[in-house]
Amino acid sequence: MAQKPSIPKGTRDFSPVEVAKRSYIMNVIKSQFQLFGFHPIETPSFENSDTLMGKYGEEGDRLIFKILNSGDFLNKVDEALYSSKNSTKITTKISEKALRYDLTVPFARYVVQHQNEIDFPFKRYQMQPVWRADRPQKGRFREFYQCDADVVGSTSLWQEVDFVKLYDAVFTKLKLEGVTIKINNRKILSGIAEVIGASDKLIDFTVALDKLDKIGEEGVKKEMLNKGISETAIESVKPLFNFTGTTSEKLDKLRNMLASSEEGMQGVEELQFIINAFKEIPLETAILDLDVTLARGLNYYTGAIFEVSAPDTVKMGSIGGGGRYDDLTGIFGLKNISGVGISFGLDRIYLVLEELELFPETVAPSTKALFINFGEEEAFYCLKAVNLLRNDNIIAELYPDNAKMKKQMGYANKRAIPYVVLAGSSEINNNTFTVKDMRSGTQKEMDLKELKELLR
Amino acid sequence: MAQKPSIPKGTRDFSPVEVAKRSYIMNVIKSQFQLFGFHPIETPSFENSDTLMGKYGEEGDRLIFKILNSGDFLNKVDEALYSSKNSTKITTKISEKALRYDLTVPFARYVVQHQNEIDFPFKRYQMQPVWRADRPQKGRFREFYQCDADVVGSTSLWQEVDFVKLYDAVFTKLKLEGVTIKINNRKILSGIAEVIGASDKLIDFTVALDKLDKIGEEGVKKEMLNKGISETAIESVKPLFNFTGTTSEKLDKLRNMLASSEEGMQGVEELQFIINAFKEIPLETAILDLDVTLARGLNYYTGAIFEVSAPDTVKMGSIGGGGRYDDLTGIFGLKNISGVGISFGLDRIYLVLEELELFPETVAPSTKALFINFGEEEAFYCLKAVNLLRNDNIIAELYPDNAKMKKQMGYANKRAIPYVVLAGSSEINNNTFTVKDMRSGTQKEMDLKELKELLR
Repeated sequence: MAQKPSIPKGTRDFSPVEVAKRSYIMNVIKSQFQLFGFHPIETPSFENSDTLMGKYGEEGDRLIFKILNSGDFLNKVDEALYSSKNSTKITTKISEKALRYDLTVPFARYVVQHQNEIDFPFKRYQMQPVWRADRPQKGRFREFYQCDADVVGSTSLWQEVDFVKLYDAVFTKLKLEGVTIKINNRKILSGIAEVIGASDKLIDFTVALDKLDKIGEEGVKKEMLNKGISETAIESVKPLFNFTGTTSEKLDKLRNMLASSEEGMQGVEELQFIINAFKEIPLETAILDLDVTLARGLNYYTGAIFEVSAPDTVKMGSIGGGGRYDDLTGIFGLKNISGVGISFGLDRIYLVLEELELFPETVAPSTKALFINFGEEEAFYCLKAVNLLRNDNIIAELYPDNAKMKKQMGYANKRAIPYVVLAGSSEINNNTFTVKDMRSGTQKEMDLKELKELLR
Repeated sequence: MAQKPSIPKGTRDFSPVEVAKRSYIMNVIKSQFQLFGFHPIETPSFENSDTLMGKYGEEGDRLIFKILNSGDFLNKVDEALYSSKNSTKITTKISEKALRYDLTVPFARYVVQHQNEIDFPFKRYQMQPVWRADRPQKGRFREFYQCDADVVGSTSLWQEVDFVKLYDAVFTKLKLEGVTIKINNRKILSGIAEVIGASDKLIDFTVALDKLDKIGEEGVKKEMLNKGISETAIESVKPLFNFTGTTSEKLDKLRNMLASSEEGMQGVEELQFIINAFKEIPLETAILDLDVTLARGLNYYTGAIFEVSAPDTVKMGSIGGGGRYDDLTGIFGLKNISGVGISFGLDRIYLVLEELELFPETVAPSTKALFINFGEEEAFYCLKAVNLLRNDNIIAELYPDNAKMKKQMGYANKRAIPYVVLAGSSEINNNTFTVKDMRSGTQKEMDLKELKELLR
């Protein structure tokens, strides 16, 4: 095979620097998950197909990566079906497993399968890759990590409060200040649908309303009319066209507007509960904002809906999202288990931190000293010192080959190793080392104890 | 879907305790990889099929999980081929990607693809899952982690020395004392093949010799004769039947025995170099042993061969292995790049630590205090305290629901949370908390500052 090797489109190799930066983000998220009392689980990369299929809609089913059965898999396809050459139908006969498409469905499966071992409410986090046969584009990959925290087995709104605080804590620790945590409630959206008398137009309505900033009130109204929403309906939700003020003021407007909708009013009360909590529990750096156009996962969430956007200075879609789903595990036969959870978008957070130069200068441990290799005897003398330094947790390396000095120094330079250690027969006789500071260029002879002090 | 959900055979869910224990092992390995100057990379879970196929032999090709192309994949199969219904041939038309089978081939692909960004010698580590459609059995799974460290771009034997030391360091840190690092050299095996005059019988020879402990010299010789190895041949390697003593003594025996084989003698010298180093660089807890029956990866390794076995008190196969391969990247068109590396068997190490009870008592951070939920006002009072504790990195939680006291206490008990915090109207008025020590059962009223001190 002489052609230059490559990787499948939509996938990525990560270099040491990239792995270190990704680990930095994941470690911050993980430590906050733990601080908030979440416990990690892991599920297999592939699930039985019937666990995944039909859970993400028709589009989702198409985007799930299917794994071919082993052996003579075509043997199991009967002649009638085989002669149809129908890819979709034959797939179910030649593929029994599929790659994880998200972490939520495997988590629901886990909860049902292990329900007798779990103490509810169960607070779990999970950080694993997922795969989607999506068309790759900037910031969208076929393999990417999800970082999720969810609680199942309690309907308490204190959890929504905790999740807002968790978002605030993570982004504060990442020094990404000024993110906006947008919050909405599915019941408010249902209330709006009731008030406009057209639940089938709800998506069109929120999509149009979301353009208020860009196309103005008249533009939005025009789009709504075009989508078949009546003038009367638009008039009945007039307050949404001037939806400003504090979150409390916004809630008052909604309370007036949705007075006729029982479900809508319940949504208002739920949001009021969460927003009240933050009058006394301060957010460190995030901004909590009520956004009635927030309609993500409409077919999925039943209560709170969250979405986090990066500070305005960065052009980037949402960097996190989540919400409450009242019947998480029903699809696997365990009814009435409410869940609520949030997710962090690792790849986008990475791009934001990169753009704002928020990664710490050193995201990974790096070699403190490179010992130059002058030949077998000198190398052996150095390797003994290297091992003693490592016993003190100091990262040190011997250059493996007796290569030209220039090559060895170049290696230290390229890897930004701050000290180079040289030992020839003179140093060996004195039981010392000559240490070169690569930044200043100065050299000094010292014994191992002094070297340890220097490198610590 | 009412049937109880399950996962594909050979795969596993990991509970919070299991994830914590696995992370403990992986963190120890990772920190030693870093201390020895290795840098992490990650490669995609699936590769183009032609990157993987043909690299692991016929058996390997069968065990690679193939991913079905998306869309109307059968459309690409021409009628003649389709009518053959030949699973193997049709696979290449309906599947272009496959799940990673090990970390070595993707690493070789990575090195070739990124050769212009890499500073050689390149020391990389990689800890990611791999997948094999093997028949599942105890300790063998279809999805499992590999933890590999390799150096490419140098033929120096100092690296073999470093890898022995790395094994010693990792197992010492894991408190798994007394592992045996078995070492051999492919060239010694070639020398033996030369001396017995039958290179095609080498595997039969080493397999038989390996049974010396169990079936004795006569048994081994009988098996060798049955396999077609001549009496003369057996006579010529007589020293192997009484292959005892120090590693240096063993080397002397080999030197005599293999004097006629140039390659064999080179193997002896290479081993001598490594063994000499450990006369002055002490191993902390591991035992280095020369084992001429060690023939793992015979078609693959060209120099040193390593294998680590658990202490004799545990029945377990190898818990690590590796070696040198002189032409790692040749399969992808980059010639003459020597590599040497080792691997840690996470699942088996886990079983060994479990059996010997070597996991630390606390492998994961755990909740220090559970605040009882007596209703909205009390919960809010508690949640404010919970957030202040978290600011000090103390893991604290509010029970989300105003459930029966017994249920909340039961939750604390099951999760082994050491302190339960109670606050009713009296505590709220006093700005205090009543704290119950779950081990002793004693209770005490205190303010937040005292509570922080207690939990820290």
